[in-house]
Amino acid sequence: MTTNWQEKIHWNSAGLVPVIAQDAVSGEVLMLAWMNQESLTLSISEGRAIYWSRSRNRLWRKGEESGNVQKLVEVSLDCDGDTILLKVEQIGGIACHTGRKSCFFQKLEGENWYETGLVLKDPSEMYSGKSK
Amino acid sequence: MTTNWQEKIHWNSAGLVPVIAQDAVSGEVLMLAWMNQESLTLSISEGRAIYWSRSRNRLWRKGEESGNVQKLVEVSLDCDGDTILLKVEQIGGIACHTGRKSCFFQKLEGENWYETGLVLKDPSEMYSGKSK
Repeated sequence: MTTNWQEKIHWNSAGLVPVIAQDAVSGEVLMLAWMNQESLTLSISEGRAIYWSRSRNRLWRKGEESGNVQKLVEVSLDCDGDTILLKVEQIGGIACHTGRKSCFFQKLEGENWYETGLVLKDPSEMYSGKSK
Repeated sequence: MTTNWQEKIHWNSAGLVPVIAQDAVSGEVLMLAWMNQESLTLSISEGRAIYWSRSRNRLWRKGEESGNVQKLVEVSLDCDGDTILLKVEQIGGIACHTGRKSCFFQKLEGENWYETGLVLKDPSEMYSGKSK
């Protein structure tokens, strides 16, 4: 069901919008993922980020395996209605599947990417098949 | 010409990647736009954000009309190479064509979007046909 507030959102031809997740406290940009209408509706009703996984073609309840849930603090829409910004409380302090806080850990220096960002947890511990 | 560092970037089927611009000082997320290979190459070489405008189907030198240029401070790539994060110095303190600092000025409260963010400059002054 399309509610009134969702009509302001301009979904792309695949029915998706890009969603930026930002740490509500530090301001660090954690990741970019995608939502469809269902995942946005569920995110709002459950108060946590639920994305649409384009690779797995299914709902992706962020933290469903790792436990690194993103609790919604604030939801914003940009001027032309085609991008959403979430301010989140990042449970576990890790947004990235590599075990880092942020997914944006490759920094361009000259003509090379350098990895930055501490690996706070071994990915094999994060994805051992059960939520923690 | 594809340089080595650009090979880590996973362009979408239209040859684009989403690019998040974040204020390097305040951490505020300013906007999301898109780049193709040419616009990214030019951005790096000129030290300013040059996007690919999907609506106008041409290079968009951010600030070309308004003067609100984004100087590059840091360029990051996410874990799967399909999103770029720019930390920028936002000249003029205005990223949005509405005259606000950030494009993300519509906040969801319950089932309504509320406009926030001061309009720092009248858009008609920003786009009067000559760069300022």
